[in-house]
Amino acid sequence: MNDFFKLISPAEFVGLFADFTPLPAETIALGQARGRVPAQQLTSPEALPPFSRSTMDGFAVRAADTFGCSEAETALLTVAGEIAMGASGRDMMLKPGQAARIWTGGELPRKADAVVMVEYTQPFDEETVAVFRPVAPGENVIREGEDFAPGTTVLAPGRALRPQDLGVLAGLGMTAIPVHRRPRVAILSTGDELVPPDQIPLPGKIRDINSTTMAALVEEAGAIPLPLGICGDDFDHMLALCNDALEQADILLLSGGSSVGKRDFTQRVFAAMADTTMLAHGISIRPGKPTILARQGNKALFGLPGHVASALVIFYCFVRPLLRQYSGLGATLGLSRIRAVTGQQIPSTIGREDYVRVRLVDQEGATLPVAMPIYGKSGLLNPLVRADGLLAIGRDVEGLDRGVECPVLLFP
Amino acid sequence: MNDFFKLISPAEFVGLFADFTPLPAETIALGQARGRVPAQQLTSPEALPPFSRSTMDGFAVRAADTFGCSEAETALLTVAGEIAMGASGRDMMLKPGQAARIWTGGELPRKADAVVMVEYTQPFDEETVAVFRPVAPGENVIREGEDFAPGTTVLAPGRALRPQDLGVLAGLGMTAIPVHRRPRVAILSTGDELVPPDQIPLPGKIRDINSTTMAALVEEAGAIPLPLGICGDDFDHMLALCNDALEQADILLLSGGSSVGKRDFTQRVFAAMADTTMLAHGISIRPGKPTILARQGNKALFGLPGHVASALVIFYCFVRPLLRQYSGLGATLGLSRIRAVTGQQIPSTIGREDYVRVRLVDQEGATLPVAMPIYGKSGLLNPLVRADGLLAIGRDVEGLDRGVECPVLLFP
Repeated sequence: MNDFFKLISPAEFVGLFADFTPLPAETIALGQARGRVPAQQLTSPEALPPFSRSTMDGFAVRAADTFGCSEAETALLTVAGEIAMGASGRDMMLKPGQAARIWTGGELPRKADAVVMVEYTQPFDEETVAVFRPVAPGENVIREGEDFAPGTTVLAPGRALRPQDLGVLAGLGMTAIPVHRRPRVAILSTGDELVPPDQIPLPGKIRDINSTTMAALVEEAGAIPLPLGICGDDFDHMLALCNDALEQADILLLSGGSSVGKRDFTQRVFAAMADTTMLAHGISIRPGKPTILARQGNKALFGLPGHVASALVIFYCFVRPLLRQYSGLGATLGLSRIRAVTGQQIPSTIGREDYVRVRLVDQEGATLPVAMPIYGKSGLLNPLVRADGLLAIGRDVEGLDRGVECPVLLFP
Repeated sequence: MNDFFKLISPAEFVGLFADFTPLPAETIALGQARGRVPAQQLTSPEALPPFSRSTMDGFAVRAADTFGCSEAETALLTVAGEIAMGASGRDMMLKPGQAARIWTGGELPRKADAVVMVEYTQPFDEETVAVFRPVAPGENVIREGEDFAPGTTVLAPGRALRPQDLGVLAGLGMTAIPVHRRPRVAILSTGDELVPPDQIPLPGKIRDINSTTMAALVEEAGAIPLPLGICGDDFDHMLALCNDALEQADILLLSGGSSVGKRDFTQRVFAAMADTTMLAHGISIRPGKPTILARQGNKALFGLPGHVASALVIFYCFVRPLLRQYSGLGATLGLSRIRAVTGQQIPSTIGREDYVRVRLVDQEGATLPVAMPIYGKSGLLNPLVRADGLLAIGRDVEGLDRGVECPVLLFP
C-alpha cells in the first residue's frame, strides 16, 4: 500500500543542483538589467572619468602656487578664465601663478593639478583671486581613470546587478549587458477538487491557492512564472500538460499528488516523460517531506506537496536555490537571515530539519527580537499569513529551549 | 557669495513626510498585487475552507467509533463508500459504525468528525476496514471556516502583500484588490556636461550616471520611474521641465545643482513653480548635505546632490521612506539592518549623521561579519560598487573604535 521511498537530507537535495548549469546568456538593455546576473566579467572599455575632473566649485590651480598661503598671507593668483560646464579644459593651459574658475565636474585645464574650494578664496580685483588655504596636488580632483582604468574589472559574474552597478555601466557607455536568461517556471496545480480563484466552488470543490502563491514566489525570485492552471487527476492529461510545460519552461512546479496515496500520479507522470531521471522522492524535512525531483536534461521537475504551507517551505529551501543556480547566483537561499531568541520551547525530531513558522516580536530594551512559533495544521493558511519567517532547526537538534538564540530566515 | 542655509537633522527631514498622504486606491487583479499595499482592511467574504476537509488520505469516521481500539483489538467499521476528490461529502451521512474512504482535501460526509490515516487501517473484507488507532474528534480535519471565518480580517493595511497573502486571497475568491497607487517618480539630471549613456562624450563632457541609477533605485522601491533625461543649466528650460514632470509624477528627483554655487538653479526653479513651498535646504548628514526638499500639494520635489554616491545615500535615507509613505507603508527605511563589528576605527563628526559605505567580510568562527569602511572621493563610483551597505553613525557619536558592534543597512 505505502510506496516506500528513501528520504535524502536537505543538503543532499541542494547538492543535486550542482549538476544544473546556469542558463545561457542574452544581451539586454542596461535599463532592464537590475537584478540580473552578468554572464561574464564586465571590463571597463575606457577610462572613467574620461578626464581629470573637479569635485568642487572653486579654482583650478597649480598646487605649488598655494603652498604656504594662509588667511594672513594669501596667495594671489591671476584668473586666466573659466572652464564652463561641459566645455573642455584642454583648451586652456595654466601658467605658474594662474588659476581658472571651475565648477564641480568640470575638466581641469592643462598643468592644473588641484582645485581650491570657492569657500577658501576671495575676489581680490577683477583679474585676481586671493587663496587663503593651500591645496596638495590632486586635492579636490578625480584623476582620469581614477574610478576605472581601461581594461579593469568593473563587475564580476555571480552577483545580481544593483542600481549603483547600473550607474557605473551607464558611465562607461556599456548599454547592452550580457546576462543569464531568466528561468521560466511552469506552474500546474493538480486535483479534481480545484477550481480557479475567480469561480465559486461547487460543494466538495475548493479554489486553487497554490498557483497564485507559486506564481508570486517565482516572480519574487526574479524568474518568469508560466501558470498553466489546474489539471484533474487524469494520468494522460497530466502527462500531456507536463510535456507541454517543459517545451516552454526550465522548471515545472507541479503541486498536489505527492503524498503517498492512490492518486500519486506525479512520480509516474514524471517517469513516463521522455529522458527523465528521478533524482529524489522524499526529503528529511518538515514540512514538505514528500517532495519529488526529476530532471530532463538541464530542466527540473518538482512534485510539490499539495498543502501550500509545505509547498512554500519547499520553494524557499529548494526551488529558489535552483532558480538562483540557473540565474548564475549559485544554489544558495538568498534570504535575509537574522538572529532571534526563542519565545517558547520548540520541539523537533532528530534526523530531520524542521522549518517552524515564526512571528517576530520586538522586545523593549533587547537587541534581538523574540521568535514566537505559529503552529497550525499544514492545510491552514492563517499561520503563514501571520508569520514573518522560518526558524530552521537542524537535523541533529532535538528541539530548542525557551530563550535561546536562533537564526530566522525572513520571508522576502 | 555663499547662500547660507539652515541644516535640519535627518529625523526632522523624515518628520516632514508625515504631512504627505498615501496615494489613492486603485483596484488591481490579484496576480498583479505582489508587493502592493492594501488600501483598506481586507475581510473574508466567506468561510475558508468552505467545508470541513480531511488533511490526510484515509477513512472519515465518527471518532467515538474508534475509541479504545488498538492493534490487538481493532475497531471494525463498515465502508459506506468513497468521497471522490472534488465530490461533495454532503451527499453521504455516516451511521454509527460506518466509515468512508476519503483523500487529502476531501469533504467529510455528514456526521463524520475525524479521519483515520490510511496507515492506521487495514482492509478486513470487501466491506469492512479494521482501524487500529483511535482518533479524537476533529483529528486530521480542518473545520469549515477554521482558517478564516466569514467577516474576519484577512489582511490589514500597512504591509506589502506577500506570496502567501495572495494565496489566501485566491482561496477566498478575492481576485480584485484595492491597493494604493504606485508612486510615479520623474527623474531629471541637470548639467551642461552631461550626455546620455549611449553617446560618446566630447571633451569636457561625461555620461549621465544618475538617471540610470535613480531609475533602478525607484524601480527597486516598487515605484514607477519616469526618466526625463538631461537638462542643461538653463533656468527657463529647467522650470518648464519641472512643471511638466509634476503633471505626471508624484515625486521629482532632480540631481545636480544642489551645491552652493553660481549654478544653483534648483532652489530658484522650485521656488518659481506655482504653489510650491520650500521645506528644507540642507541636512546634517554626510554625504548628501545640500539636499533640497519642496512640496507642491501632496507632491514632493527633491534637489539631490550631483555625485551619485551622495544621491544614493539620500535616496535610501529619504526618498525611499517617502515612497513608502505614499505606498501606505509609512515613512520607514524598509531596508534590512544587520549587526556587524567595525574592522577599523571610523572617525565621524559630532552634530551630523555619517553614512559610511562598508564591505562586509565574514570572519571564521565569529557570528558577526566585519564591516570594513570603503573610503573614496564622493565623485567615485568604485567604492559604491564594492560596498554591501551603509554603516550609520549617529549625530552624537564622535566616531567608532575598531572592534565595536555597529548596525549596517544592507543595500537591497
